[in-house]
Amino acid sequence: MSCNFGNRIKLTIFGQSHSEAIGAVLDGIPAGIKLDLEKTSAFMARRAPGQSELSTPRKEADEVKILSGVVDGVTCGAPICAVIENTNTRSGDYDKLRFVPRPSHSDFAAFMKHNGFNDIRGGGNFSGRLTAPLCFAGSVCIQLLESKGIFIGAHIASLGKANDELFDPVRVCKADFDAVHAKKFPAISDRNAELMRKEIYDARSSADSVGGTVECAVIGLEAGVGEPMFDGMENKISSAIFAIPAIKGIEFGSGFAGSRLRGSENNDPFICENGEIKTLTNNHGGILGGISSGMPVIFRCAVKPTPSIGSSQRSVNLMTGDSEELIIGGRHDPCIVPRAVPCVEAAAAVAIADLIL
Amino acid sequence: MSCNFGNRIKLTIFGQSHSEAIGAVLDGIPAGIKLDLEKTSAFMARRAPGQSELSTPRKEADEVKILSGVVDGVTCGAPICAVIENTNTRSGDYDKLRFVPRPSHSDFAAFMKHNGFNDIRGGGNFSGRLTAPLCFAGSVCIQLLESKGIFIGAHIASLGKANDELFDPVRVCKADFDAVHAKKFPAISDRNAELMRKEIYDARSSADSVGGTVECAVIGLEAGVGEPMFDGMENKISSAIFAIPAIKGIEFGSGFAGSRLRGSENNDPFICENGEIKTLTNNHGGILGGISSGMPVIFRCAVKPTPSIGSSQRSVNLMTGDSEELIIGGRHDPCIVPRAVPCVEAAAAVAIADLIL
Amino acid sequence: MSCNFGNRIKLTIFGQSHSEAIGAVLDGIPAGIKLDLEKTSAFMARRAPGQSELSTPRKEADEVKILSGVVDGVTCGAPICAVIENTNTRSGDYDKLRFVPRPSHSDFAAFMKHNGFNDIRGGGNFSGRLTAPLCFAGSVCIQLLESKGIFIGAHIASLGKANDELFDPVRVCKADFDAVHAKKFPAISDRNAELMRKEIYDARSSADSVGGTVECAVIGLEAGVGEPMFDGMENKISSAIFAIPAIKGIEFGSGFAGSRLRGSENNDPFICENGEIKTLTNNHGGILGGISSGMPVIFRCAVKPTPSIGSSQRSVNLMTGDSEELIIGGRHDPCIVPRAVPCVEAAAAVAIADLIL
Amino acid sequence: MSCNFGNRIKLTIFGQSHSEAIGAVLDGIPAGIKLDLEKTSAFMARRAPGQSELSTPRKEADEVKILSGVVDGVTCGAPICAVIENTNTRSGDYDKLRFVPRPSHSDFAAFMKHNGFNDIRGGGNFSGRLTAPLCFAGSVCIQLLESKGIFIGAHIASLGKANDELFDPVRVCKADFDAVHAKKFPAISDRNAELMRKEIYDARSSADSVGGTVECAVIGLEAGVGEPMFDGMENKISSAIFAIPAIKGIEFGSGFAGSRLRGSENNDPFICENGEIKTLTNNHGGILGGISSGMPVIFRCAVKPTPSIGSSQRSVNLMTGDSEELIIGGRHDPCIVPRAVPCVEAAAAVAIADLIL
Repeated sequence: MSCNFGNRIKLTIFGQSHSEAIGAVLDGIPAGIKLDLEKTSAFMARRAPGQSELSTPRKEADEVKILSGVVDGVTCGAPICAVIENTNTRSGDYDKLRFVPRPSHSDFAAFMKHNGFNDIRGGGNFSGRLTAPLCFAGSVCIQLLESKGIFIGAHIASLGKANDELFDPVRVCKADFDAVHAKKFPAISDRNAELMRKEIYDARSSADSVGGTVECAVIGLEAGVGEPMFDGMENKISSAIFAIPAIKGIEFGSGFAGSRLRGSENNDPFICENGEIKTLTNNHGGILGGISSGMPVIFRCAVKPTPSIGSSQRSVNLMTGDSEELIIGGRHDPCIVPRAVPCVEAAAAVAIADLIL
Repeated sequence: MSCNFGNRIKLTIFGQSHSEAIGAVLDGIPAGIKLDLEKTSAFMARRAPGQSELSTPRKEADEVKILSGVVDGVTCGAPICAVIENTNTRSGDYDKLRFVPRPSHSDFAAFMKHNGFNDIRGGGNFSGRLTAPLCFAGSVCIQLLESKGIFIGAHIASLGKANDELFDPVRVCKADFDAVHAKKFPAISDRNAELMRKEIYDARSSADSVGGTVECAVIGLEAGVGEPMFDGMENKISSAIFAIPAIKGIEFGSGFAGSRLRGSENNDPFICENGEIKTLTNNHGGILGGISSGMPVIFRCAVKPTPSIGSSQRSVNLMTGDSEELIIGGRHDPCIVPRAVPCVEAAAAVAIADLIL
Repeated sequence: MSCNFGNRIKLTIFGQSHSEAIGAVLDGIPAGIKLDLEKTSAFMARRAPGQSELSTPRKEADEVKILSGVVDGVTCGAPICAVIENTNTRSGDYDKLRFVPRPSHSDFAAFMKHNGFNDIRGGGNFSGRLTAPLCFAGSVCIQLLESKGIFIGAHIASLGKANDELFDPVRVCKADFDAVHAKKFPAISDRNAELMRKEIYDARSSADSVGGTVECAVIGLEAGVGEPMFDGMENKISSAIFAIPAIKGIEFGSGFAGSRLRGSENNDPFICENGEIKTLTNNHGGILGGISSGMPVIFRCAVKPTPSIGSSQRSVNLMTGDSEELIIGGRHDPCIVPRAVPCVEAAAAVAIADLIL
Repeated sequence: MSCNFGNRIKLTIFGQSHSEAIGAVLDGIPAGIKLDLEKTSAFMARRAPGQSELSTPRKEADEVKILSGVVDGVTCGAPICAVIENTNTRSGDYDKLRFVPRPSHSDFAAFMKHNGFNDIRGGGNFSGRLTAPLCFAGSVCIQLLESKGIFIGAHIASLGKANDELFDPVRVCKADFDAVHAKKFPAISDRNAELMRKEIYDARSSADSVGGTVECAVIGLEAGVGEPMFDGMENKISSAIFAIPAIKGIEFGSGFAGSRLRGSENNDPFICENGEIKTLTNNHGGILGGISSGMPVIFRCAVKPTPSIGSSQRSVNLMTGDSEELIIGGRHDPCIVPRAVPCVEAAAAVAIADLIL
């Protein structure tokens, strides 16, 4: 099944890029939670396209309409359904793609999976647009988590060849998140932000695109959350994060770099600070044996460069087998990494909410 | 829930390092599959400890006893239960660890999760020993997949600072897998194997440990397998792979390196070869939009250095909050990466079997 | 979780009686199925209220709007979301019920479950109105099943003290279903229909209500469908059927009456008819060991009398604990059994679709 | 999948009647629960065959061996695996049944499902013997529930044409359960027990079998447990209860009889007694809208007469299609209803534990 996530909450996402609407059903949120829908709008605006000269000119109001589950702004325990109409669709752009798949897009795989009956328009239900309802659900979960003292923040850790600073894995705090959230371009350092923006401009001016990495931290999660083996924190978070199109890798704590270290370098000694047991370092990324350790949960994920690029590419006509030079029209982002940042926070929030409820 | 994986198959793993036995129940395997139990034994032997001077001296017969689901060597459609007795346990070694958690082990998190009622002996159900039943289940799934022309192979991609060659992401074939499987030390290049073995010797001689990365490829999987969003190939594979203790990262195709590329570099052009549609390169790692593309599925995962090291480490007594210098006795591997290789294949097999059945 | 059903399909139902809208998300329906939406409307009309002088005067257009999953009338493999607006709500009717629960309604249990935050209006998400999206999903599944030669039909088996004939458990056929579906009042025998209608009139004229039983048959299902123990046909069907409010019992084949028989009376001998293996009788209701036998699947379910009645009832004020005489205003059916008939077919279709896909 | 139950707990049952062993894995039981294994043995003894002249002479020690999840008699949070060896198997008895299915047994359906690869010996994994691990798991859940003040009791409500009294649906209490549990023959009234035993003797002396009904009550469950629609109390309990072979019907509260009543007769008025809100009657069986009301949960289920009978029956050779007269050798119960009583309690306990954890 494609559209379902969770054991204790159940998140169902539906819609295609050019269907009537897209949306989410979020079940399992306790009754009596006051939702701040302005916060939700602000959160979703961070993901929305069309905000700057750097992203796709497809402007979507992305106005969320809540159909159920909320009475007078308070959850009533029934599934929360929210829909977003697809208003600004230009389906004509995609007709020629039905039989000539765009390189590194889902087109070919979707065609094979659905015997050609897949909705090709705008990438159908494989579209990055489906992250809008994910962000809605994430925002609800974030508000739930915040009411329990759990906070989530992400930033661009690298973009093309430019790097940002990383969160301090031991001392990262809510103020760090607030600082990034206040920025139009979600990097920790403004100087790095400039270099990153330059990467995007350069890619765009070459009719190209560029990828990056996003770092995310979760603080305030108490020790002991998660299950061993298949429902550990890493399993759960990664299976939510890979729902975001374009994510191709994830690492927790010291991750791949840690695999090059010795145990004596990578191990995190325990200390007792003000009666609380912590670790001196946090190479384990807040997760031991799949279970939260009480330290900040830290992970980074790799976002591939947007596959839609302006220059001509080599493809094949699925009906004839003939080679075709493909030029993708339509509207596309030279870089989706900034917009992926709230998506990563949303996916993490959904995963954590599922683990703690 | 901790011990359950899958929708179309259901894998349940149970046991603790020092309980009576460990085992697996694998449900959903079709009736009528002939199992080659010698292949299973050979597969599990690749994971077993005590094979060389390089790994833990705890010798486990790891003899699998099949309790159900197989009649005269053929599956009967009922759940397959296999158990492995724990014979060579020395629980005394672990008593002092109950209140002084080993750095970067699950001890502390497990203690917090289970209010101190967790089975501390040998890491309890967080032990790497639980990968033995995973390998049993993996072996059954591998045999099922092979009967459908799907093959899985893995090798050590790096160990400490030494690197192996990587699989050719486009042309990797069964012969490549056979070549690695035939070796005692699972690397592609013998010269690299020497460097890697030296990393292990060096770590051991410093009473230290060392990590590495494992690369895995799946070939023969047709295009169109997987589901968008939450049940895509990446979600499913990663949620199985993170069941292996010590795995802290996973990347598909060009992964993290790909996130530094331009779209024009990372995109994989489509070609038609002998009537079959393929991609010229395979930066997408055989997965587009969460769905298999028909190209080899390629992923790499990061294995942290074994947290059990011989040298003294800083910890805290959970009862008193006092600092303690901890010296871990017992038996431990300086490097589990070689033994992780079949575990990665097993987890991948379980994930793929769940997707195609 | 409340709103989710299925392993191979995933049905999610959302909405409250008086929320903006109610709806369903149905995932797992293969791409390429042509949906006949007029059939769907006709099916849903059988459930809709306000059709005759016998049912609630609340008229609902129950117009279904498909938001996703269908392109030009054909499924595209993406989740199908359908919504029905709640247009004819009179929430004022329910305000006084918040703290004075209606006897044998969900009000009290919902209040306790959700600490008073439940949506009381119209019974919230416990309302029988939620069977409208169930019928939508059922209609999609029915069309899918019919394309595979599987047909489902139900009728009122009893209403109050009046009985209908039962389906012939061995020879029931599609024509029997068509005959019932063609009738405004879904009974096999017109004479029995008259007696049943009289039961409803009598109940209504006493400001009372009346219950009944519904019999359902599934034909064309091949032998071998279902799983032993927890995912057998009986488990699956019953767990779908009890989603219909007011259902309080279910029996398969000879059911409760069969429990009074001897084995020699209840056993169904096997015969071979035109090369096909069948049973001479069908006391097993088409299910043996949880698995379909190829004979018609037959079950009956008990529908309690509508708890909303016009006469005064005894209740308690939840805030004060004081006794209150409750007179339920608003609009309510004296008998929902006729409207339950398509709901039973829908729930059965969803269950069977989940088993065969 | 066949062998899996639950969301918050996960129960996996494995084994065939004549495999090496049968067993259960129960995951999700909190750490720190002290298990009384003598209570478990006593509970399982109520299900065991060979206890009296009335049941099958196959004697099974049914000795449970706990492989994992329990340390020094206390749960450690890891999955609890328990196995029971199959010692007293006489597989020769079943060889001739492979191609001549026993009427109203699972043989034919299992053959069709598994293309003849099913384990025919003793009914394979469709055997009633699989209720032994269900009872083990049930006993663990019962002990967990009792620690929370929730108690479960069942008795034979009817056997053939003989009826027992029923529990008082409002006042049923633990003493009622203890009284039945203390009896060798689990009926409320000794006089009725005599009539029931006579039914069994009569059936046996005619080489026949006889069915019955079991009534079960759950007390101490607070109001507000369960979920609307698909995960309501009725859905959950019925999907556990139908795991017991031979169960063909279930009804809650007034059930089928209630469907013949008027609303004014079937509705249960609310009252306030010593500050607690209750209902005066309990036709709703403790469940309103799928949610517990705080009143005793009451249900009854129909057990079909054992299909194995001594007299000759008509069957068909699956290979040739020829009619065959079948005489079932081996050992079989003339009535399994008494042994079904603890199975019903066990299944109910598993369902309730899954709902409240």
